[in-house]
Amino acid sequence: MGLIVQKFGGTSVADAERVMNVARIVTDTYKQGNNVVVVVSAQGDTTDDLIEKAKEINPNASKREMDMLMTAGEQISISLLAMAIQKLGFPVISLLGWQAGFVTSSVYGSARIRRIETERLQNELDQNKIVVVAGFQGLNKYDDMTTLGRGGSDTSAVAIASALHADKCQIFTDVEGVYTADPRKIPNAVKLEEITYDEMLELATLGAQVLNNRSVEMAKKYNVELEVLSSLVRKPGTIVKENVNMEKMLISGVAKDTQVARISLVGLPDEPGIAFQAFSRLAAKNINVDIILQSIGRDGTKDISFTVAKDSGDEAVALMKDFIKSCGGKDVAIDKDVAKVSIVGAGMETHAGVAAKMFEALYGAHINIRMIATSEIKISVLINAEDADAAVAAIHDKFIG
Amino acid sequence: MGLIVQKFGGTSVADAERVMNVARIVTDTYKQGNNVVVVVSAQGDTTDDLIEKAKEINPNASKREMDMLMTAGEQISISLLAMAIQKLGFPVISLLGWQAGFVTSSVYGSARIRRIETERLQNELDQNKIVVVAGFQGLNKYDDMTTLGRGGSDTSAVAIASALHADKCQIFTDVEGVYTADPRKIPNAVKLEEITYDEMLELATLGAQVLNNRSVEMAKKYNVELEVLSSLVRKPGTIVKENVNMEKMLISGVAKDTQVARISLVGLPDEPGIAFQAFSRLAAKNINVDIILQSIGRDGTKDISFTVAKDSGDEAVALMKDFIKSCGGKDVAIDKDVAKVSIVGAGMETHAGVAAKMFEALYGAHINIRMIATSEIKISVLINAEDADAAVAAIHDKFIG
Repeated sequence: MGLIVQKFGGTSVADAERVMNVARIVTDTYKQGNNVVVVVSAQGDTTDDLIEKAKEINPNASKREMDMLMTAGEQISISLLAMAIQKLGFPVISLLGWQAGFVTSSVYGSARIRRIETERLQNELDQNKIVVVAGFQGLNKYDDMTTLGRGGSDTSAVAIASALHADKCQIFTDVEGVYTADPRKIPNAVKLEEITYDEMLELATLGAQVLNNRSVEMAKKYNVELEVLSSLVRKPGTIVKENVNMEKMLISGVAKDTQVARISLVGLPDEPGIAFQAFSRLAAKNINVDIILQSIGRDGTKDISFTVAKDSGDEAVALMKDFIKSCGGKDVAIDKDVAKVSIVGAGMETHAGVAAKMFEALYGAHINIRMIATSEIKISVLINAEDADAAVAAIHDKFIG
Repeated sequence: MGLIVQKFGGTSVADAERVMNVARIVTDTYKQGNNVVVVVSAQGDTTDDLIEKAKEINPNASKREMDMLMTAGEQISISLLAMAIQKLGFPVISLLGWQAGFVTSSVYGSARIRRIETERLQNELDQNKIVVVAGFQGLNKYDDMTTLGRGGSDTSAVAIASALHADKCQIFTDVEGVYTADPRKIPNAVKLEEITYDEMLELATLGAQVLNNRSVEMAKKYNVELEVLSSLVRKPGTIVKENVNMEKMLISGVAKDTQVARISLVGLPDEPGIAFQAFSRLAAKNINVDIILQSIGRDGTKDISFTVAKDSGDEAVALMKDFIKSCGGKDVAIDKDVAKVSIVGAGMETHAGVAAKMFEALYGAHINIRMIATSEIKISVLINAEDADAAVAAIHDKFIG
């Protein structure tokens, strides 16, 4: 007996057959004696259809009206899932975001959850109903519909799990869990039984997008145990929690990110405040900088290299050209044919030689390392884009086998 | 300067082009210095799609979940219309039924409007916004979405016009107004400038379905001036109100109804209470009886004939066969090849000879009258179904020309 929150994305409820599949997963969980709250996104094609309809009429519609339009999507999916659960003979009720008590900030299109007023949710659960809740949406102080932005349904699910002190929050996806590498590319990638919130966050930012970061951050903050699992295969997935058995595995994953570009500032005057001036210009334009490398000064000049998201590359170069002129530097260069490969693992905090082992793997594969960055639970290297897949394979072989 | 409520049905907002057309009608009204509240139904195809999705999953879904599903339809159309109005550069906000303050009874699928809490509506109008309201829907005391049932959007519009004391409630349709007969069949049918609520109600029940009866009844009760007009042609339509200039036209319309059947009870004992016994059996099964004719008693027996809706005919016959047995009557007969042709007009209350003129028209066309029924503003005759169109033409010629 417990309370379990289950979340299903748009592809999991894409058509009648998949809706019935979700209904069976939910009712099986209920039959085992659990209370169940189900959070669903809009059906994949519904979202696309609605966006298409809006564009045809007004591509510059206000975000308030876009949210009004888009939230109809989850309204459709929750009622259909409730009908499917009724068909299987179980008591159920669907609730819109506002009916489930989601109070959000006022920003349309990317509202944040302020609180959940759980009275109705609790009341329906007390009547032993399965409760189907519209993810991704809430109501702001003007009594208007809002959406939570990208990955919002994951966040909705974690927020409910936290507010109701659920025993577990299961996030159903199209993969069976979190893997040590992309299983489509690395055949011997291993599914993790457990992973920490921090490792999950590092993996997510590295492009292994299984869970939305906001939802993992929220789960960490409120200590909600997550499970990532498949809606198609009935198997245990990967548990995400605060502490896992670190002895089990040194690193929890290898990830690559090819959406990066390296920018080099050459021949900068070797003076205090130069780096600050450069990066404050980028920050003012909301350009995030990742790995930063500064050469040791020589002949009164120094070089700074850093990486940015590839699609911010040209804007960053333009800003840096202005900067170079103003400070008397020599040149700005950009290289878009690069990739970032990282290993993540809480285990490496307590194990020496992880970096050396990683570099050895790359050396063995004849891959040149162009930049290095490390944190407590992550080591990233920048390499040529064409070497990315080989690098992941070599590192994975070395650590996981 | 005034406040005008405009209502557009599902076909008027069926696609992007039509939504833009409605936006132009609305903003033209606003530009003339009026406050405008627009009530819209769901797009025609949206409603069909949603019903199809539900049926595929569970044809016996609860009405509560069906209402949850269906109300997403108007949510889509109001936001799209608001986007179209934004595109034309006017201030606008869309409101769901509950946001516009619609409080309904609890019956899903056919809820009744209890009241409209107009605070938000008034507040948005005070900010000079065009307000687009989802028709057909409201919220019940459980904070759940409800729908108003057939023709619900007309009722929503009239209810808002009443609650806000609007100067006029315009119901846009695909016809240019109310005609003296079906203009597709009677080429010289005349569009009426004005018609009374009662005449409109009689015409509606006679099968000339332009406005939903509930909405006309509500308009009459709260004295809301209605206008029926076309969303495609920019012309004045037909005004529906309490008093019209009766001198203008003797009768306001000729209508036919072929969905009737005549049932005859032959050889009933000529005793008190016989008619009561017969009709109470029909009433118990919710079968409505229209025209009733009772013969003068003869040889201690009498005959009773009456009309019912054609699709209740067989059930009524079965009930009457039982009755005939129990009271010792002779026979029950049904005739489905009949039609009811009626003239409606407040003018006939003060003009003698209207019935005679109608019968003369039918006689001139060699049409046999099988039953006659009259009320203050209506005369109906039952004739053979094959004569129906000729009867309408002859009567129309005689009265309207």
